Amino acid sequence: MRIARTAAELHEHLSAMRPRSGEADGVGLVPTMGALHEGHLSLIRAARAAHAAVVLSIFVNPKQFDDGGDLAAYPRDEEQDIALARAAGVDVVFAPSADEMYPSGFATTVSVHPRLTGVLEGAVRGAGHFDGVATVVCKLLAIARPDAAYFGEKDFQQLLVVRRMVEDLALPVRIVGCPTVREADGLARSSRNARLSPEQRAAAAAVPQALNGIADAVGRGVVGVSELRPPALETLERAGLACEYLAFVHPETLVPVDAVDGPTVCAVAAEAGPVRLIDNLLLNPPAPEGIGHA
Amino acid sequence: MRIARTAAELHEHLSAMRPRSGEADGVGLVPTMGALHEGHLSLIRAARAAHAAVVLSIFVNPKQFDDGGDLAAYPRDEEQDIALARAAGVDVVFAPSADEMYPSGFATTVSVHPRLTGVLEGAVRGAGHFDGVATVVCKLLAIARPDAAYFGEKDFQQLLVVRRMVEDLALPVRIVGCPTVREADGLARSSRNARLSPEQRAAAAAVPQALNGIADAVGRGVVGVSELRPPALETLERAGLACEYLAFVHPETLVPVDAVDGPTVCAVAAEAGPVRLIDNLLLNPPAPEGIGHA
Repeated sequence: MRIARTAAELHEHLSAMRPRSGEADGVGLVPTMGALHEGHLSLIRAARAAHAAVVLSIFVNPKQFDDGGDLAAYPRDEEQDIALARAAGVDVVFAPSADEMYPSGFATTVSVHPRLTGVLEGAVRGAGHFDGVATVVCKLLAIARPDAAYFGEKDFQQLLVVRRMVEDLALPVRIVGCPTVREADGLARSSRNARLSPEQRAAAAAVPQALNGIADAVGRGVVGVSELRPPALETLERAGLACEYLAFVHPETLVPVDAVDGPTVCAVAAEAGPVRLIDNLLLNPPAPEGIGHA
Repeated sequence: MRIARTAAELHEHLSAMRPRSGEADGVGLVPTMGALHEGHLSLIRAARAAHAAVVLSIFVNPKQFDDGGDLAAYPRDEEQDIALARAAGVDVVFAPSADEMYPSGFATTVSVHPRLTGVLEGAVRGAGHFDGVATVVCKLLAIARPDAAYFGEKDFQQLLVVRRMVEDLALPVRIVGCPTVREADGLARSSRNARLSPEQRAAAAAVPQALNGIADAVGRGVVGVSELRPPALETLERAGLACEYLAFVHPETLVPVDAVDGPTVCAVAAEAGPVRLIDNLLLNPPAPEGIGHA
C-alpha cells in the first residue's frame, strides 16, 4: 500500500496501475475524514470487490466545519487508519494537507441549491457545510479520477448532495451509496461515537429505537407524521437526548411530507452531551389493502 | 465533421477518435457561444495545430446572462457557425440545448470568490455572470474531457476565472489563452459587433485608440493612473461612447493599482448604443533608466 500526500504523488502511484483502469473495474475511491470504523471498512470492501485499484482519501476538510470547535475535536488517528486501510486491501491512501487541497489564493466553491443544502444538516451546521462537502468531493474526484466513489447512507443528505452535483456537472463517475453499518444495539457507526461517555453511549441507542418505532408503526398502517412523531420524540427525550430535528421528507427533494404515502426518509439528529448523532431510515408506505395482502 | 446535441452523442463521436487521445495531443476544446468570428477561428486554429481531435462547443449559456434582453439579443446563426467550423477543421461540434445542459432539477453552481468575480465585468453584469461562466465551463470540461481548452484573451477576466477554477478544483485540463484578434482599426473582434450601426462601428475604434494611447504614454514613462486615465476617458467621450469602467488592475488579483510599476491590465468597457464593448491591454512598466536603456 502506498501513501500519497499530494495529487502528484497519487497520480504517480496510480499510473503504475492505470493500464487496468481503462476497464470497467478501474479505480474506486472511498473519500473519508479518517477515524475509520466498520462503516468505512464496508465502503472499502465494496470498492475492493468492484475495482482493480482502491484509493482511500483521508482529509478532515476544514471547509465543511462551520464550527471550529467541532473541527478541532474531530477524532484523528492516522497511524491506526493506515493500518486498517492496509488490512482492508486499500492500494493507495491519499492523505493531503489542508495546504495541498486549499493553497493560498484558493477561491472556488461548488454549491448545491439551498433547497437541498439549507435544510436538515445544512440548517443546523450552517450554509457552508454542504458547500464544503461539494467542493472537496468535486476536487477529490478530479484528483483521483475514479470510476466510482463510495459513500455511506448514514449521511444520506451528503449522499444526495454529492449525487446531485455529479449529475449536474456531468462528472464522469458513478456514485455508490452503501448501507449504514450499526452496532449490536442499532447505533449507526460514526467517528464521533468515540467521544461518547459510557452513559451517553447507552443513551445513544434511543436514536435507532426511535427510528425503528416509526418503521414499526408505519408497518401497522400508521402513516400520519403527526401520529408518528410524538412517540419517537418521547423515546429520545426519555434517554436524555436533545433532539435537533426529526424530519419526514421526500428522499430526493427533501420536501417535508405530512404522511408516509410514498417513499419517505425519516431523518433524525440528536445531541448526546457534546456529540451530534445523526441517523435516517427509508420508509415505504404499507402495501394497500386488498391487493393480495389482505 | 459530426454534430452532437447531447453528451452521449459527443462521447460516441469522440470514442471513435479516443485511441489517439491518450497521447499528448489528445482532444482540444474550444468553448463558444456561437456567432463565430475571426477570434473564435484563431482559437480553433490553435487547437487544430495541437490536438488529434478538436471539439467546438456552441452554447448560448442562459446562466451567464443576468439580463434577459442581452440573452435574447445575442446573435445566433448556427448554420453559418457549422459551415465555419467545418472549414476550420473542427471534428465535432457540440451544440446542446439548454435542457440538455440544465435539465429540470439542476441545482449546482460553481463560483469563484467575488474578489475576482464581483469586480469589472462582474460588477456591471451582476454577480451571477461569472457563476454562470464557471458552472458551464466546468460542465463542458467534464463532458468533453479535453486535454486543453482554448479561450480568448479579449475576455481576460473570464480567462482568469476559468484558470482559477481549473487550478482550485484540480481539473485535469490545460487552459490556453489566445491573443485578441482585431479589425484593421484595432477593434477587438466580438460577436456583439454585428449589432453595431455603421456610426457606432466607426465610434467603437475609440476603445482600442484609448488603450493604445495609454500604452504609448506608459512607454514614455507616464505610469500614474491619475495621469493615464483622463486622456483615455476623453478619447472615449469624444467618440460618443459611454464608459462603464476604465480600470488598472493587477493581472492575477484584479486589485486596482495607482501606478503601472509592475505588470498591469488596463481593462475597459464602454457602450456604443445598445452594444457593450470590452477590451484590455497588458501594460508593462518602462525599463528602468540606467540599466542599459539610457
